[in-house]
Amino acid sequence: MMLGLDVIRVGTVRATGDGRFLLEVLPAYRAGLDGLVPGARVQVLYWMHELTHSDRRSLRVHPRGDAGTSLRGVFSLRSPMRPNPIGVTEVDVAEVREGGLVVVGLDARDGSPLVDIKAVCRT
Amino acid sequence: MMLGLDVIRVGTVRATGDGRFLLEVLPAYRAGLDGLVPGARVQVLYWMHELTHSDRRSLRVHPRGDAGTSLRGVFSLRSPMRPNPIGVTEVDVAEVREGGLVVVGLDARDGSPLVDIKAVCRT
Repeated sequence: MMLGLDVIRVGTVRATGDGRFLLEVLPAYRAGLDGLVPGARVQVLYWMHELTHSDRRSLRVHPRGDAGTSLRGVFSLRSPMRPNPIGVTEVDVAEVREGGLVVVGLDARDGSPLVDIKAVCRT
Repeated sequence: MMLGLDVIRVGTVRATGDGRFLLEVLPAYRAGLDGLVPGARVQVLYWMHELTHSDRRSLRVHPRGDAGTSLRGVFSLRSPMRPNPIGVTEVDVAEVREGGLVVVGLDARDGSPLVDIKAVCRT
């Protein structure tokens, strides 16, 4: 059921080649970065754009893609196969640039549309 | 910039009146709940449907809505005002029903479209 819940792309996730990622924020949204500093912990929401419509129809999958395991519901897992291909990952901010953030701890495909960045309260 | 990143509504967040919430999952997506048990910890993604287009254009806001504080970028906060009104909250599963999950720890508006449920690895 499509209900017109439209996600706006606010930028692009770029692999930097050294295992880190640049969260490149479009100029129109850069004011949203105000207040972020190196050492901050943030939650990154990105669109897993390489998933197909068929992947989005998967409701039971083998955990970790291991066919030797029993099928499990996707809501009980973090498999990328799920109705809404939105990845959510907590990362550390290594560097703040004018055009975005360099982060450590992400495992995304280069070129993924950036959906959101949210502060994480350290506990 | 709208790029056709369409979110599918997989259900509805219902306030139960006792401070808990029912994550009511549409019949077509219920197979995704397989494997979830009471006591599980999950991340809930929901659409903050009461936010306006103007709220979505906010890039700097007063933390906690307190006008006495300095404006901060929305990506350095968890304010609901942000380009994409997707809430992400970790909750405890209290009960598993055929039609969804009863959870504790959510602070959402009744009727919010449910976007996703993801397992959380307890650390």
